[in-house]
Amino acid sequence: MPTARITIIGTGLIGTSIGLGLMARKERKYEVVGIDRDLPNQREAKKLGALDREADSLEDALDGAGLTILAVPVQAARKVFEQGSQYFAEGAIVTDTCSTKGDIIRWAAEFLPEGVHFIGGHPMAGREKSGPKAASADLFQDATWAITPSPRADESAVSTVLGMVESLGALPLYIDANEHDTYTAAVSHLPILLSVALFRMVRDSKGWEDAGLLAGPAFRDLTRLASGDPVMSRDIMATNREAVVHWLDRYLDELGVIRTALQEGGQVVTDMFSSTQIDRDSFILNPPARRRPEGPEAPSAQDAMGRLFVGGLYDKLKEVSARSSAQRDDRDLKRRLGMDEDGER
Amino acid sequence: MPTARITIIGTGLIGTSIGLGLMARKERKYEVVGIDRDLPNQREAKKLGALDREADSLEDALDGAGLTILAVPVQAARKVFEQGSQYFAEGAIVTDTCSTKGDIIRWAAEFLPEGVHFIGGHPMAGREKSGPKAASADLFQDATWAITPSPRADESAVSTVLGMVESLGALPLYIDANEHDTYTAAVSHLPILLSVALFRMVRDSKGWEDAGLLAGPAFRDLTRLASGDPVMSRDIMATNREAVVHWLDRYLDELGVIRTALQEGGQVVTDMFSSTQIDRDSFILNPPARRRPEGPEAPSAQDAMGRLFVGGLYDKLKEVSARSSAQRDDRDLKRRLGMDEDGER
Repeated sequence: MPTARITIIGTGLIGTSIGLGLMARKERKYEVVGIDRDLPNQREAKKLGALDREADSLEDALDGAGLTILAVPVQAARKVFEQGSQYFAEGAIVTDTCSTKGDIIRWAAEFLPEGVHFIGGHPMAGREKSGPKAASADLFQDATWAITPSPRADESAVSTVLGMVESLGALPLYIDANEHDTYTAAVSHLPILLSVALFRMVRDSKGWEDAGLLAGPAFRDLTRLASGDPVMSRDIMATNREAVVHWLDRYLDELGVIRTALQEGGQVVTDMFSSTQIDRDSFILNPPARRRPEGPEAPSAQDAMGRLFVGGLYDKLKEVSARSSAQRDDRDLKRRLGMDEDGER
Repeated sequence: MPTARITIIGTGLIGTSIGLGLMARKERKYEVVGIDRDLPNQREAKKLGALDREADSLEDALDGAGLTILAVPVQAARKVFEQGSQYFAEGAIVTDTCSTKGDIIRWAAEFLPEGVHFIGGHPMAGREKSGPKAASADLFQDATWAITPSPRADESAVSTVLGMVESLGALPLYIDANEHDTYTAAVSHLPILLSVALFRMVRDSKGWEDAGLLAGPAFRDLTRLASGDPVMSRDIMATNREAVVHWLDRYLDELGVIRTALQEGGQVVTDMFSSTQIDRDSFILNPPARRRPEGPEAPSAQDAMGRLFVGGLYDKLKEVSARSSAQRDDRDLKRRLGMDEDGER
């Protein structure tokens, strides 16, 4: 009797944190399998207890997985679709954690076979350091997790992903992929450029040695994102360039307004700092209320994951896994018999 | 026999943290007195254990203080000098924690009587929240504390301030006031503007509600400084405008370079993110070595503060306090007798 399987592709900070969260559930009746093209990262994730098992190959990872989570830079996700689509079983659920959603929704439609359900996802969580060593099971606690279902994903597939998201302590937010990309360009992607620009400006200045000595928590916080994974940043800019440049231009305008205010001095500067402080403090104290997901009902119990996997959806995952195993046995048999997939020799 | 007294003017985050650090020393033989023009802040600092006693007035705070620490926005420090200079005793040591150093050094020379030693100071430490409630005794642990002695400060006065700085766990860095202001403009003051600009841009956009929902740790970190004390920010810009605008212009240039790279795409973007990540990681892992102060020897023992106050400098502080108390008794007597300070009725 096969076990329901969840597969994580990419065991960096995000993938390993998901694995740790999933493995921490005592009542779990699924196994967690992981793979990373960086073998030391994959080994580390296993060592940290984020995986039951490391997969040998993309086929081994995807074949028989009821739920697959792509925790890779967005352009790497495209490659997984291209190279792995034939391994997904009918009914398999696929989600991701990529920073942009427009392209990946299109690629899922282009590459994934019918009967495979893609639900886009994006946890708004991060740390200064990347890689599995920086991971922790509570990384997503109270974080927004954007969810962008593809048009053909069915309700139970969406519910499974919602259950996983809530079981990790995150708060799901349904959002259209284009809207997601427009607004994360402002609050997540532009900030990467601002960090990179500040670090480069100071580093490339003649005073770098002295400035570095005086750099305190302000500089450290403001340049944190410059230490992010460069491949992830590159992929973000490649797949969301237009929106990022739009916000960059608005930001340049805003800095121009502030520059003028500084030159004038006086009350306008005081008012600017005061009103911004009030608004930001209120934003931090009372963050905007999250819209409850509409459409498929979100699991309401804290124990959503347990309920999902122990209940009906667990049976569904098992069914997918079993079907896939049977398919694999069938493929192995055909291969051994020298036949192609259609049974032709 | 009077006790050696340290006075803290301004019991916000920095002043209260200094008080907590000074009060935590078991072997201390000094009392810590504090005052804030915001009475609830002053009360809170006392309640938190950052002060032995609250002063009733500026005169009460300064008169008899061997060491006075101004932990107020820089333009408020000028007012303290203007209004309080007559209360400082001969030999008193005065330092500050203000974000800019050029103006305060000039004001100290202009307003403080001869025989009062001013040593500029600036701890490179901060938190998201301001006010005494955010304070802690370890705020300065391993932080750089810039020290800019005025030309007429004597060696033992500089040593006293160094001792205080090291006793709080900070690492003193001697630096010329103009150099300090030039480089902190890049690593501390410009970042305030970058935070304020990002928060305002997103808040003022039509998508604020949606963008706010998607705002995660990146937005939170990058806008942290927008929650800083607006009076402090205003004072920084007023006293360091030229340097801040200089760096702002260089920053605008840097963003222009990055904008062009984004439009081109490809390898130039990858290289930008990769090289910046390498440099920042190396900066964080191996921060530039701090130059040991030259001139007056820095106390080398962990217990610098204890040694200073228990040893010769303690006697000096006591002497100053005693002298001042005698002066005060004298003044009180004269006042009761209806005479002015010169003994004329």
